[in-house]
Amino acid sequence: MKKYVVELIGTFFLVLTVGCAVIGGAGNLAPVAIGSALMVMIFAGGHISGAHYNPAVTLGACLRGACSWADAPGYVIAQLVGGAAAAGIVGGVFGLSNADAATLSVGPTIIAEILGTFALVYVILNVATAKSNDGNSFYGLAIGFTVTAMAYALGGISGGAFNPAVALGAGMMNLVSMGDIWMHIVGNLVGGAIAAFVFLFVNGSE
Amino acid sequence: MKKYVVELIGTFFLVLTVGCAVIGGAGNLAPVAIGSALMVMIFAGGHISGAHYNPAVTLGACLRGACSWADAPGYVIAQLVGGAAAAGIVGGVFGLSNADAATLSVGPTIIAEILGTFALVYVILNVATAKSNDGNSFYGLAIGFTVTAMAYALGGISGGAFNPAVALGAGMMNLVSMGDIWMHIVGNLVGGAIAAFVFLFVNGSE
Amino acid sequence: MKKYVVELIGTFFLVLTVGCAVIGGAGNLAPVAIGSALMVMIFAGGHISGAHYNPAVTLGACLRGACSWADAPGYVIAQLVGGAAAAGIVGGVFGLSNADAATLSVGPTIIAEILGTFALVYVILNVATAKSNDGNSFYGLAIGFTVTAMAYALGGISGGAFNPAVALGAGMMNLVSMGDIWMHIVGNLVGGAIAAFVFLFVNGSE
Amino acid sequence: MKKYVVELIGTFFLVLTVGCAVIGGAGNLAPVAIGSALMVMIFAGGHISGAHYNPAVTLGACLRGACSWADAPGYVIAQLVGGAAAAGIVGGVFGLSNADAATLSVGPTIIAEILGTFALVYVILNVATAKSNDGNSFYGLAIGFTVTAMAYALGGISGGAFNPAVALGAGMMNLVSMGDIWMHIVGNLVGGAIAAFVFLFVNGSE
Repeated sequence: MKKYVVELIGTFFLVLTVGCAVIGGAGNLAPVAIGSALMVMIFAGGHISGAHYNPAVTLGACLRGACSWADAPGYVIAQLVGGAAAAGIVGGVFGLSNADAATLSVGPTIIAEILGTFALVYVILNVATAKSNDGNSFYGLAIGFTVTAMAYALGGISGGAFNPAVALGAGMMNLVSMGDIWMHIVGNLVGGAIAAFVFLFVNGSE
Repeated sequence: MKKYVVELIGTFFLVLTVGCAVIGGAGNLAPVAIGSALMVMIFAGGHISGAHYNPAVTLGACLRGACSWADAPGYVIAQLVGGAAAAGIVGGVFGLSNADAATLSVGPTIIAEILGTFALVYVILNVATAKSNDGNSFYGLAIGFTVTAMAYALGGISGGAFNPAVALGAGMMNLVSMGDIWMHIVGNLVGGAIAAFVFLFVNGSE
Repeated sequence: MKKYVVELIGTFFLVLTVGCAVIGGAGNLAPVAIGSALMVMIFAGGHISGAHYNPAVTLGACLRGACSWADAPGYVIAQLVGGAAAAGIVGGVFGLSNADAATLSVGPTIIAEILGTFALVYVILNVATAKSNDGNSFYGLAIGFTVTAMAYALGGISGGAFNPAVALGAGMMNLVSMGDIWMHIVGNLVGGAIAAFVFLFVNGSE
Repeated sequence: MKKYVVELIGTFFLVLTVGCAVIGGAGNLAPVAIGSALMVMIFAGGHISGAHYNPAVTLGACLRGACSWADAPGYVIAQLVGGAAAAGIVGGVFGLSNADAATLSVGPTIIAEILGTFALVYVILNVATAKSNDGNSFYGLAIGFTVTAMAYALGGISGGAFNPAVALGAGMMNLVSMGDIWMHIVGNLVGGAIAAFVFLFVNGSE
């Protein structure tokens, strides 16, 4: 239960920052704000839940053996609830809504989401679960700023979710069209799964 | 006494940066400047006073058992004096004053301040007082960039104080109206207290 | 083989970020995006390949004795393939192309590339291979943000490659003219070699 | 001799970044570039020379007992030579010159330089020389981003040198008038000395 609360809180603040920063005027600093929000929630919650805040990360962590499959449904539900709650507050309490959802092309969007999520899960598994990196103090910085870098690179192509819970919230806030978020979800899960297999290959049997 | 000097210095430079960066032209980089100022003062002073620089943090730390209640009045006085001194220098020495105070709505302002302060105190208690995170090198980065992320997200709603000493300084510099800072103070103390209780729940008895 | 895969992945995401961020609208935040991409790939891959992602770094590491000369050809091939693949995706999949290549002057370009690559390899050898710095958690941050700092300083002079694999990708994406990248490659290899010798001098026999 | 080479290299790249980023178009990201350049050179050179790169830091370190007075002249000469060499390359090789030097007021400039240098030396002595912080991985980040924060806050008042070697270079590049840099030098030495005494007070006898 404690793990799920931590997952809900972390995903809530991640999606809150996505919505408020993008709609509310952080301008071209929004990826710094979003990556920072993820970074700080990872440093805060990593010791309790592993700090996934992302169903694609939970998938990758399970495939790599760093999270039990039995925990996965609770994690994913907490993430989606946290993301949806944040989107509700952005619109319902702060009154921020996005005029026009981004227009996305299917092929480039799915490829961009696969690439960005691959980078994210590849970095996470290496910095947070590889034995050689035990006890480091950089894992949150590395993971948060993967999202910053990928949002600058790929945000203009796909919106830059790299996370189905973010995609859900982005749909609710009309940053992307609700009818388009299947592209993100497909790309996120594919990218996360590939990252887990590449991690296992390049790290060997440890 | 040494602790109070450190609290005064840290809060002084935090509020100095808030005033000079916002009024003086850091533009949309102001949250990076402010979060960096907090980060560096935490890394500098954490080993002496715990580096609160914020009455809401002192409240949360006392509720969590990481600070004695007997120290609290001295901490808060030092923080308020440091913040007020900085505001005085911004206006009196550098001649910077803000033309129009932000117009704030009561409900969204209080909710934004509760959320931002909750995030701040939740991150602080986890990265700086949880046993599993002993000896880490990331605590200042995590705490400082929580303010950066929350200022980008919520600054447009409430002004983004997350700290009664900052609210006092912001009132003195006319960033917000002096008549409005009760909203920040209420939100900050409520958010800090909730964070302490959530911390105790998710970290269990350790 | 695992090392080469890691080198290819890291260089791929570095050049992908260079292309998408510069052409696609990260504006004056592009150096933050690029430095962050390098940082996160170094934190992710350092424990496997040493995380060079740059033929000039491989040269410097070999001269310093931190990489075997036998590994060098495989590293460089993987880096060039990763960089070229990224450039291909930026243009072929995302349809981003740069209208006009930067106009470069030979002398200042070569000097800027020598200086920037010297800084990069000097930082890398000190933070990642000096015995006194064993086990630190800052190596990726230091290396990535060397590129950020040097790109802000020198990007307007030479384009700011500091890396032959980036120069190749930049040429393919028309950020610089293909006919000009010999200047970068010469500057990068000279800067990297000088850095190795200076490192050996200032660190002594350890 | 090795220490002096490291001091020269670090100060060279710091002043190179100041000049190229401010004159060459980093815009309001210049403080991030400059703080990053200082950060990376501190992480690279700290284990050899202590990474002062600043006569005011050398003064503060000597007063605190972290540097021998016999080393001070060599350190300061290396810093000034490094800063002047960088300024020469910015103008002579890259052809960058600043049209109009900033117009400064004596009182606010000296106070701003005292405050900024105090913050810098106070952070340095605490993160890099206090026993409780031995072996941390954050010292370069804390020090570099003190300059970032103070440059955003105080750059518009004094130009934001916080370092006599930077002031010399800034004078040579016409960022400030050569006739004005005595204000910076006075403020820097006063601020650095005060920081050393405050450090000794708040850290006690250790």
